[in-house]
Amino acid sequence: MALVLPSHPQVSVSLLLLLSVLSLAAGGKLLVVPVGGSHWLSMQEVLDGLRQKGHEIVIVSPEFNLFVKPSNNFTMKLYQVPVTEEEINGDFQAFLKEAFEEGSFVERFLRVRERVKKLYELGFIACEQLLKNKELIRYLEESNFDALFTDPVLPCGAIVAEHLSIPSVYLLRGIPCGLHLEATQCPSPPSYIPRLFTDHTDHMNFLQRVKNVIFDTSNLFLCDFLFKPYEKLASEFLQRDVTVLDLLRKASIWLLRYDFVLDYPRPLMPNMIVVGGVNCAHKQLPQEFEAIVNASGEHGIVVFSLGSMVSEIPMKKGMEIADALGSVPQTVLWRYTGEVPPNLPKNVKLVKWLPQNDLLAHPKTRAFITHGGSHGVYEGICNAVPMVLMPLFGDQMDNAKRVESRGAGLTLNILEMTSKDISDALKAVINDKKYKENIQRLSDLHLDRPIHPLDLAVHWVEFVMRHKGAPHLRPAAHDLNWIQYHSLDVFAFLLAVVLLSLFISVKCCMFCCRRCCFKKGRKSKSGKSKTH
Amino acid sequence: MALVLPSHPQVSVSLLLLLSVLSLAAGGKLLVVPVGGSHWLSMQEVLDGLRQKGHEIVIVSPEFNLFVKPSNNFTMKLYQVPVTEEEINGDFQAFLKEAFEEGSFVERFLRVRERVKKLYELGFIACEQLLKNKELIRYLEESNFDALFTDPVLPCGAIVAEHLSIPSVYLLRGIPCGLHLEATQCPSPPSYIPRLFTDHTDHMNFLQRVKNVIFDTSNLFLCDFLFKPYEKLASEFLQRDVTVLDLLRKASIWLLRYDFVLDYPRPLMPNMIVVGGVNCAHKQLPQEFEAIVNASGEHGIVVFSLGSMVSEIPMKKGMEIADALGSVPQTVLWRYTGEVPPNLPKNVKLVKWLPQNDLLAHPKTRAFITHGGSHGVYEGICNAVPMVLMPLFGDQMDNAKRVESRGAGLTLNILEMTSKDISDALKAVINDKKYKENIQRLSDLHLDRPIHPLDLAVHWVEFVMRHKGAPHLRPAAHDLNWIQYHSLDVFAFLLAVVLLSLFISVKCCMFCCRRCCFKKGRKSKSGKSKTH
Repeated sequence: MALVLPSHPQVSVSLLLLLSVLSLAAGGKLLVVPVGGSHWLSMQEVLDGLRQKGHEIVIVSPEFNLFVKPSNNFTMKLYQVPVTEEEINGDFQAFLKEAFEEGSFVERFLRVRERVKKLYELGFIACEQLLKNKELIRYLEESNFDALFTDPVLPCGAIVAEHLSIPSVYLLRGIPCGLHLEATQCPSPPSYIPRLFTDHTDHMNFLQRVKNVIFDTSNLFLCDFLFKPYEKLASEFLQRDVTVLDLLRKASIWLLRYDFVLDYPRPLMPNMIVVGGVNCAHKQLPQEFEAIVNASGEHGIVVFSLGSMVSEIPMKKGMEIADALGSVPQTVLWRYTGEVPPNLPKNVKLVKWLPQNDLLAHPKTRAFITHGGSHGVYEGICNAVPMVLMPLFGDQMDNAKRVESRGAGLTLNILEMTSKDISDALKAVINDKKYKENIQRLSDLHLDRPIHPLDLAVHWVEFVMRHKGAPHLRPAAHDLNWIQYHSLDVFAFLLAVVLLSLFISVKCCMFCCRRCCFKKGRKSKSGKSKTH
Repeated sequence: MALVLPSHPQVSVSLLLLLSVLSLAAGGKLLVVPVGGSHWLSMQEVLDGLRQKGHEIVIVSPEFNLFVKPSNNFTMKLYQVPVTEEEINGDFQAFLKEAFEEGSFVERFLRVRERVKKLYELGFIACEQLLKNKELIRYLEESNFDALFTDPVLPCGAIVAEHLSIPSVYLLRGIPCGLHLEATQCPSPPSYIPRLFTDHTDHMNFLQRVKNVIFDTSNLFLCDFLFKPYEKLASEFLQRDVTVLDLLRKASIWLLRYDFVLDYPRPLMPNMIVVGGVNCAHKQLPQEFEAIVNASGEHGIVVFSLGSMVSEIPMKKGMEIADALGSVPQTVLWRYTGEVPPNLPKNVKLVKWLPQNDLLAHPKTRAFITHGGSHGVYEGICNAVPMVLMPLFGDQMDNAKRVESRGAGLTLNILEMTSKDISDALKAVINDKKYKENIQRLSDLHLDRPIHPLDLAVHWVEFVMRHKGAPHLRPAAHDLNWIQYHSLDVFAFLLAVVLLSLFISVKCCMFCCRRCCFKKGRKSKSGKSKTH
């Protein structure tokens, strides 16, 4: 049925307004610029929630974007990139493989640096192609989106939001160089807030605090290293000089995958919403896995996955792990797609995929061997399963440290661990009750919340769509420069006033003294002259 | 029916544990040490919510505590104080009356200082009597409370919680000297966070920022002035040296009556929960008021109240106000118990009490004349009624400034305002659409929340009761001294390292230079000697 608009201009304008209000009431229109890989996992959950609320969701993504697959829930707008799926996969696998390669600290640092640069370059090439795709940009300009939803770890979404002049919501675990804290004007004292990659807890000794401050300084260079190409691209595209920091400062809401049972308590700003555990929605366990779990007997099972991105590990390491897994009476479900270690014990079942959260939710699950990705760690916490952590890269070392410092798991160094280390750690978290008690306590605290983090995330995206942003949550600190923010000009002024007052007082005193002395001198002189 | 416990010790212990868990599941036991007056209004709402959840609530209060009345919902434990109801009421009225008395800034400052001291003394006397009441203290010790709920503006509850070793939850708008920020380790840069009583917004010019820093310093003396007597009392009672800051630092949760549509965006700590608007639950409008509102015709009504504590105002001021109220066509409902101004116009109806929130919720309400108490201001925001603000004391000036800076109302100086000022302001907020639009926008933002602040407050009190506190939200900053927190030792160390490196480098250079020169010198000398 075609809708015929009345010819009177005022009436038709009112009707259009009414229709637009109704359309928003029925559901808004959200543009999504996703980051692939594990970053997509939480975002997808939030988008499913938003779809259920009746919003139209348009995802703009390069043709190949790890895990980001077309779905009936979303409209996908794919664009071509001059990199093949094989090249991208190859780069990821090379990056992950290097985590298992030994070497001095400097060697490993340089290797990781080179690989991270390569991965950021991939993201950059994709972003460049999107911004150069005139047809797609025109479609976005004409689509009247209510808001943009992205992970700012790659700032392409921020550039698009700026170009379209629409408010944005970010979902993230963090930005490697800490730019999310600067962009939100969030105080972050290095004295008790450990920096990423430092492997510190929130209780640091003097030398750790020194290291933390040094890491803070090096973050300045890291930000530059990661985002400089984007700044050039954004400035060209927007036809004015902008920095990535300028763009990120404009975000309306930052949905942080934090929770203070895992992360250390720290200041937050009003537009930072804590939604850690957003990915813990529990579904039905598939029958074949249910059968394996039930067959495990009184000892139950161990869930083992180094994340969906690790496809293989070096055979020597694989054999050591297999050896260790054979030392426990539990059935071990190991998600692994690489070459099967020849010494694989009978109690270990290799699977190409496993429903991780649903397996962890099973009461027979005794332990979780994980690489310490934030999604996995939150699933471990949600389901109160003690963990053995084998961190590989990124924030995984920090996540592992957090779990270990709370007594809810044990961390192994993937390069140095022996078969005995793995076996000892696994036996400890299964048999020593304190690990189960600690993770149960964390889980109880985490799950005792006034609203589910998924509902919270959906609410805030909708809020930004409804109100065209959240300017009332923007701190005035954004309008101050560094000197003003730290009140250095005020302190300098007050110091000057105090010094000037002191100077004047001293001068006055000296003047008075001199006058007194002068008078005395004159008196004594005149006295003397009188006596003469 | 008597419950007979089995004789086997292990079984009986398990049964006791089970019973205690069941009792908590059925409802916990909460001790409340309330502060009277307007502080009680929000607390009562939260307590009603907690009672509905099946918790047992015991309120410990002096015999006379403004507004704190016995109720079927709570067990009241009253204790005697050596001050009569008349004396307390007299002190309050004298305090309020002085708000209308003119004088120089210094005169008014000294008057307010003296009165605040007097009011704090009243609280102190009550606290002293509670702590000396051995019978009552014994009852509290034997009652096994799960948590204590109080407003820390008077720190008596904090002393009791420390003595009973139970976790505590605070509900507050703030502590005059800003001690709540120090006690939570919450960063509060004076560059964009206006201090109480400064009358600043979050956008300050240089001189305002100077004033803000000076107020920050004076707060140190104010804290001392207000809390020194309590420190002595607490140290005696707890038999060890404690400061009020020590006690407040131990609070598990701080429920702050903040909302960023009213208050300026600022950092918060994880155990600070924002529950502004907790008092906006809407009830049915009593019939007599419904009749008055309905009879007001197309012009609707104006609600006017200077708070439930102000019983009378000087006749001259009253006549000016009455004169101004006659200049608008709206029916004005004025809550006033003092002497009726002889020039009271026909459109003004004086009432001894009015259902403020329910009247404000009526669509016929056009404006709200208020003293700017936080409860009233939140009710104005909840119901989107533009305000004329006549602040009297405390945080009212700051609240008024916030409303005015958001374009949702106009502020009048109660000492200087003329009849024309009042009339102009009232006409403006009624007839100039921008005030209604602005307050409507604030209201829409305020009400668009994932959970009602009352439910949030109830949840967090229950959380602390269930988990015996919230230690996972306590920042590690509490374990650092001032120098460590600000990393001054780290910066000093790094500076020393840099200077030492420079010194050594320079020394090395000089040493090398000297050796070079020496060699050259020797060479040239030997050369010279050869030529000789």
